[in-house]
Amino acid sequence: MDDLKEKSLAYHARARGKTALAPTVPLASRDDLALCYTPGVAWPCREIARDPSLVNTYTAKGHTIAIVSDGTAILGLGDIGPEAGLPVMEGKALLFKKFAALDAVPLMIATHDPQEIIRFCELIAPTFAGINLEDISFPRCVEIEETLRSRLSIPVFHDDQRGTATVVAAALHNALRLVGKTLANVRIVVSGLGAAGSAIATMLHGFGAREITATNRSGIISLSNPATKEEAKRYITRGVLHDAGYDPQDNTLSRLMRGADVVIGVSVAGLITPDMIDSMAEKPIVFALANPDPEITREDASRAKTAVYASGRSDEVNQINNVLVFPGIFKGALAAGAHDITDEMTRAASLALASLIAPEDLTPTHIIPSILDPRTTEAVASAAASAAANAAAQSAPERSSHAQ
Amino acid sequence: MDDLKEKSLAYHARARGKTALAPTVPLASRDDLALCYTPGVAWPCREIARDPSLVNTYTAKGHTIAIVSDGTAILGLGDIGPEAGLPVMEGKALLFKKFAALDAVPLMIATHDPQEIIRFCELIAPTFAGINLEDISFPRCVEIEETLRSRLSIPVFHDDQRGTATVVAAALHNALRLVGKTLANVRIVVSGLGAAGSAIATMLHGFGAREITATNRSGIISLSNPATKEEAKRYITRGVLHDAGYDPQDNTLSRLMRGADVVIGVSVAGLITPDMIDSMAEKPIVFALANPDPEITREDASRAKTAVYASGRSDEVNQINNVLVFPGIFKGALAAGAHDITDEMTRAASLALASLIAPEDLTPTHIIPSILDPRTTEAVASAAASAAANAAAQSAPERSSHAQ
Repeated sequence: MDDLKEKSLAYHARARGKTALAPTVPLASRDDLALCYTPGVAWPCREIARDPSLVNTYTAKGHTIAIVSDGTAILGLGDIGPEAGLPVMEGKALLFKKFAALDAVPLMIATHDPQEIIRFCELIAPTFAGINLEDISFPRCVEIEETLRSRLSIPVFHDDQRGTATVVAAALHNALRLVGKTLANVRIVVSGLGAAGSAIATMLHGFGAREITATNRSGIISLSNPATKEEAKRYITRGVLHDAGYDPQDNTLSRLMRGADVVIGVSVAGLITPDMIDSMAEKPIVFALANPDPEITREDASRAKTAVYASGRSDEVNQINNVLVFPGIFKGALAAGAHDITDEMTRAASLALASLIAPEDLTPTHIIPSILDPRTTEAVASAAASAAANAAAQSAPERSSHAQ
Repeated sequence: MDDLKEKSLAYHARARGKTALAPTVPLASRDDLALCYTPGVAWPCREIARDPSLVNTYTAKGHTIAIVSDGTAILGLGDIGPEAGLPVMEGKALLFKKFAALDAVPLMIATHDPQEIIRFCELIAPTFAGINLEDISFPRCVEIEETLRSRLSIPVFHDDQRGTATVVAAALHNALRLVGKTLANVRIVVSGLGAAGSAIATMLHGFGAREITATNRSGIISLSNPATKEEAKRYITRGVLHDAGYDPQDNTLSRLMRGADVVIGVSVAGLITPDMIDSMAEKPIVFALANPDPEITREDASRAKTAVYASGRSDEVNQINNVLVFPGIFKGALAAGAHDITDEMTRAASLALASLIAPEDLTPTHIIPSILDPRTTEAVASAAASAAANAAAQSAPERSSHAQ
């Protein structure tokens, strides 16, 4: 770990930041200056004022994404503030560029107020093709994303919710196939009903999972647990979560894991022990996704009866990380001219991601493709774009029949 | 002009935007991913959370500038909105990179409310080393800049005010030397008391100019002119402007120009005629700085008795444009660790800019260096940094004597 620390700090200090600006046009002569700046620059301004759609022809708006965060939920490190969260957003920007050829701008902002975060995103909308919300704490992130999706005509996506859920669903799809089980017949436990956990439960429910239970810092999510009433109301009454009941003497993850088929950790390091895995049903699937350090290490999980193990780490096989989808989801949405990233788009992306590994190639250490596989972002982008185009085609006749 | 239009639109459409993001670190392997993103990225986050000053070591913050505009005063085109103003901000970003090696981010925002613009800048302060306000209409820009300078600990600079003033003062310094006059003994007329005009008058007054008069859309600025009361109160009672009196029958620029030594146009195209120049004192100096098209063209001015002519155009000699200073001012401020861009710094920058042309090299078509001269940004940056360091050194003993 100390070796990784040293390497990472050197990597980050090398150029003071992982991305920089690069000119895409020449600027060497007085003639170039007269095009880039006054008087020539007045022409694209006039053209865009005349026809606003030309902003995508004459500026970078059409391929530029804002990465907005308030620094309240940085990795698993918590509320470490806007400055300390900047390296993560710069990393995202680099990944956007590398995998989707999009230009992203990290914007760490100094407020915790959801209304101010929403207003901030409304203010910057003219400059960007899309907004990637990032590492905003739960449940504020849900309200912020929902409000912005309804108000803005550019795609808004809180990566830690639906991005993570999209990858988890793909990985679980393949892991279940490997152990010969199906979503409809397994017991799934989510450890950490936060931004990621709630979106994972919602998406798996949408894909047909019947019994999902969950915990958060206050124990097991149940209508009978006085400390989880808000969450229970939101997710149990809607049918997303199953009510596991409340026993103050036995109110932790270990109770839910007994006999479960799948545990998905999106909580904190070290929460799962080998004994807890051994209490699960046969061939248990363990996704230990806390970042930077998982709920249980691969080494420790392998000392139990674990059938399939995955973590969020870039330095391990089976990396379940939203980097597998966010570049492609935005690339696909922008290619299709989508105004929103819909559930249909994330579902299509998830299935496309899972299908990149042929059934005969599935192994316990190969349930999800690598982001370094050049097909990954392409498949996700293409599926998301098709889903967006289908939705547009379906809504078009309906709209025109109402157009009077 | 049509040729310029065609060339400029092609230049802007070439890469859809004049700048793009470029990686500064490798991202080719799983090992690189583990440094750029989880788990490695957690280390710079933890280090910055521990010691906030390390944000300048591990991220791009220390060399990244926000260019913030609401699109209300784009060039001379007026309030054309945030999208249509984007090409100008992207041009600025390119100039920041080219001349000062700084990475700038255009942020066109969808509000006209000064309080919202101020709050927006407060919110983004954690991400940026400085904020370049741009093309925000007068008088809102004055309040916005003043408020932000007092609230933020990073430099905030409305380029169209103090940036333009810094270059005008330098050019006028050299032009007066050329015609054998001095600031204290000339009559100066400012056409267009807006963002630039008010800052120019203020800076020239600070440099010792005794008689400056001005006009705006409502005519001559005078305490007796009912339509210019606000401006008169602000600039005449403070002694910056001279009260030229009010005559409703003769309330235009041409009255002020009669007998004047210097006219500085920061207004709109075509406002000055050769006859008006011929009514001025001997050896008149004409700065026609409206962008993209000047108050009078060089060709028309040369048909009158003009001694020195300058415009804001990149395609002409004697370009008076804030591009000569904004890259250097920010470069110098950041190098000195300055928390504010003070009047001392802009004065020093102005004098440094003027002195780049040796007295024996001054000619009517060479009163100001070119931005393409590599000494320009260096001289401005170095002067601004020295002024900042001097101010810090002077205030340091005072502070320590109070430290108990």
